[in-house]
Amino acid sequence: MQDRHTGAIGVGVVGLGRAFMLMLADLENDPRFNLVAACDTRSSARESFSSQYAAPTYSTVKALADDPYVEVVYIASPHQLHKDHAIAALAAGKHVLIEKPIAIDLASSRAIIDAAVGSKGNVIVGPSHSFDPQIEACLQIIKSGKYGSLRMIRTNYYTDFMYRPRRPEELRTEEGGGVVFSQAAHQVDVVRLLAGGQTAQVYAHTGAWDRKRPSEGAYTALLKFENGISANLFYSGFAHYDTDEEFQWMSELGIKKDPAQYGAARRLLQTIDDKTEQRLKNLRAFGPDINSQSPAGNEHFGGLVLTFDQADIRVTPQALYIYEDEQIRTEPVLPAIAGRRGVLNALWALVKDGVSPVQDGRWGHATLEVCRGILTSGKSGDVQIMCEQVPVPGYPDVK
Amino acid sequence: MQDRHTGAIGVGVVGLGRAFMLMLADLENDPRFNLVAACDTRSSARESFSSQYAAPTYSTVKALADDPYVEVVYIASPHQLHKDHAIAALAAGKHVLIEKPIAIDLASSRAIIDAAVGSKGNVIVGPSHSFDPQIEACLQIIKSGKYGSLRMIRTNYYTDFMYRPRRPEELRTEEGGGVVFSQAAHQVDVVRLLAGGQTAQVYAHTGAWDRKRPSEGAYTALLKFENGISANLFYSGFAHYDTDEEFQWMSELGIKKDPAQYGAARRLLQTIDDKTEQRLKNLRAFGPDINSQSPAGNEHFGGLVLTFDQADIRVTPQALYIYEDEQIRTEPVLPAIAGRRGVLNALWALVKDGVSPVQDGRWGHATLEVCRGILTSGKSGDVQIMCEQVPVPGYPDVK
Ligand SMILES: NC(=O)c1ccc[n+]([C@@H]2O[C@H](COP(=O)([O-])OP(=O)(O)OC[C@H]3O[C@@H](n4cnc5c(N)ncnc54)[C@H](O)[C@@H]3O)[C@@H](O)[C@H]2O)c1
Ligand SMILES: NC(=O)c1ccc[n+]([C@@H]2O[C@H](COP(=O)([O-])OP(=O)(O)OC[C@H]3O[C@@H](n4cnc5c(N)ncnc54)[C@H](O)[C@@H]3O)[C@@H](O)[C@H]2O)c1
Repeated sequence: MQDRHTGAIGVGVVGLGRAFMLMLADLENDPRFNLVAACDTRSSARESFSSQYAAPTYSTVKALADDPYVEVVYIASPHQLHKDHAIAALAAGKHVLIEKPIAIDLASSRAIIDAAVGSKGNVIVGPSHSFDPQIEACLQIIKSGKYGSLRMIRTNYYTDFMYRPRRPEELRTEEGGGVVFSQAAHQVDVVRLLAGGQTAQVYAHTGAWDRKRPSEGAYTALLKFENGISANLFYSGFAHYDTDEEFQWMSELGIKKDPAQYGAARRLLQTIDDKTEQRLKNLRAFGPDINSQSPAGNEHFGGLVLTFDQADIRVTPQALYIYEDEQIRTEPVLPAIAGRRGVLNALWALVKDGVSPVQDGRWGHATLEVCRGILTSGKSGDVQIMCEQVPVPGYPDVK
Repeated sequence: MQDRHTGAIGVGVVGLGRAFMLMLADLENDPRFNLVAACDTRSSARESFSSQYAAPTYSTVKALADDPYVEVVYIASPHQLHKDHAIAALAAGKHVLIEKPIAIDLASSRAIIDAAVGSKGNVIVGPSHSFDPQIEACLQIIKSGKYGSLRMIRTNYYTDFMYRPRRPEELRTEEGGGVVFSQAAHQVDVVRLLAGGQTAQVYAHTGAWDRKRPSEGAYTALLKFENGISANLFYSGFAHYDTDEEFQWMSELGIKKDPAQYGAARRLLQTIDDKTEQRLKNLRAFGPDINSQSPAGNEHFGGLVLTFDQADIRVTPQALYIYEDEQIRTEPVLPAIAGRRGVLNALWALVKDGVSPVQDGRWGHATLEVCRGILTSGKSGDVQIMCEQVPVPGYPDVK
């Protein structure tokens, strides 16, 4: 059994799936954290975990949260389970890091917020790409007022999200399926952070045109913020075009893609049945033959251009290209030591100093309100008025 | 006096300004057309015209339209005058080519349509970038059904439109100023043509944040079409970033730009007063020292990506990049012999064969309805329902 008494923060994981895999290398390489326990319904994953980390696994979240070495419960189970899992962890007085989206309905995210109020534990919703270093760099520029006010944001991402191996409920909207819950959660988080947080109006179109993958696989939305800033969002998870091409084939996860793999996701899917798809999804999860890759560069979430009074900024994972009045300036974005370093820093600050990042429970709830607004507007054709929004502290007034 | 009796179509020009300059080379080089008369309030322009073309100039549109050698009246006067000028020409039984937008209010465009009903003459609204050859190539692909149905369109353009020399009314919305009348007219024309024409809903944000150039200089809009196709539009004429960068610095007009000229429009504007600005605007118009450049490649109107069931197409003035299921295919777009050849072909077909292009008076009226919807939605925050739309003939059903 590994030493569970180090000064590092003890992390107990709920859900040893794909999301956990994406955090694994960063958690392992970060001496501030220790994987001390896990809970999963898949016994193979539990066995791999306890043999690899010489750490206990539990069959319920309650039992995991009661483990005294667990200081933070990292909830990486499917969205629709986040509520019960978070409430169980908070009831035991533990901090929780909840994967995005915080939940799939607002009653659930409100219940999580309420549970935190009565608990010693606190909530971070993440990782999301709002923790990426280039986003933080943009926020600093916005706060500096250097280029006047931010006016408009345009962001877009073309991916094959809908054609990667999926759990059945990932293709059923009512259970949290489709790109609005999984991917708009990132995009909305990013634009809310850059625009000050307080979305006023949401109008959207959603697309669910592939009958074999029957959920919203694409959307486009306009968000208007209380301060007048406007954001234009586009996402297609049914795509053939791949926005990563614009970033020297750097993937969302900061890993170099091989352009020769063009079309691989669709090709694979055509050769397999539903059972095999579930097996393939699990192969991307934690288990006996895991294969986690360290990032070569920063993570990102597609194309992003910010329009200020006195500049436009084109944001890439490698650099900010700042088009000023007189010249174009390139501001390199230092490669993060770890792709998901941002959220781990926030977690450390919460546990050690009691400082909460902006991406707390209320923030995640507000992002979910916008995501649900996208779905509702896409169905009804109406503008959705937001009323559960929270501001970004220290965000400057728009003049 | 030049021979006004050729087999070519006699064109009488109303408004020897900037728009005329952009048509001039193409008209001159096209043996099918003859510049036979002009009308302008500026005497210097009239004098240059008559000495250059040995052709009469008139002080009223009525007099120009009554000239028997004038078969087509090309109306390139400011938007707010299009109605009176078009009606005068149609009353004389002449065909009219009206610069976009057809007018600035729907009563005026309806009056033009009505005037055409009682006339031998017919209406084309153009040139607009819906006549560009790459747009025609996309429409052919859509009609072929090769990649299933078109689902979503995304288009955007960052320019310095608001910082080029302007007439005072070009900066006053009530008189047709700002980018919605001038530039959305192109963008909406393009997406309506690609999506089948019948816009159902418009929702938009508009931006008028530069007090020194007080009109809408930017907008972003979502259009939903009757057939379910969705279009995402973004335009900033306050921009520092220049989308032409993505097209090897090929400008909207198909002319190579010099990247070293970065920021020139803003710089110039800072050194001059209003009077000088008017003079500079006129320097870009027809006059004694004109300087018209022939295009080096196709015209375009910024970034454009089409999302089909079985492909995405990234449209550039040089080529269509077609991302299919299995491969990426490049389909070169032949450089048009002349930038504005498309609209001249349409004009020829109308005069010689009585065949009207889709971009007729009703079409222009429908595009104006959408542009006005963008302005109204931007102000009110409401979705605008369109009811004056017309279809693209032969457009396939969306399945
Ligand atoms: N931030 C990111 O980049 C990112 C990436 C992928 C997924 N996610 C999020 O992570 C969450 C999980 O998605 P995923 O793709 O990893 O799914 P997944 O299916 O790969 O993993 C879910 C895991 O939870 C386990 N599980 C299921 N029910 C459980 C229960 N009752 N108790 C304990 N464990 C249980 C499953 O066995 C599986 O190991 C989702 O909310 C998703 O949005 C985030
Ligand atoms: N298709 C394009 O790419 C394009 C480009 C520029 C302008 N335009 C359109 O062309 C039209 C004109 O715009 P512009 O930029 O050329 O403006 P401009 O000011 O450069 O030109 C207008 C011309 O009309 C003349 N004029 C004014 N009042 C007149 C009258 N009563 N009778 C006759 N002539 C009169 C002016 O003296 C001037 O020469 C607008 O509708 C605009 O949207 C289209």
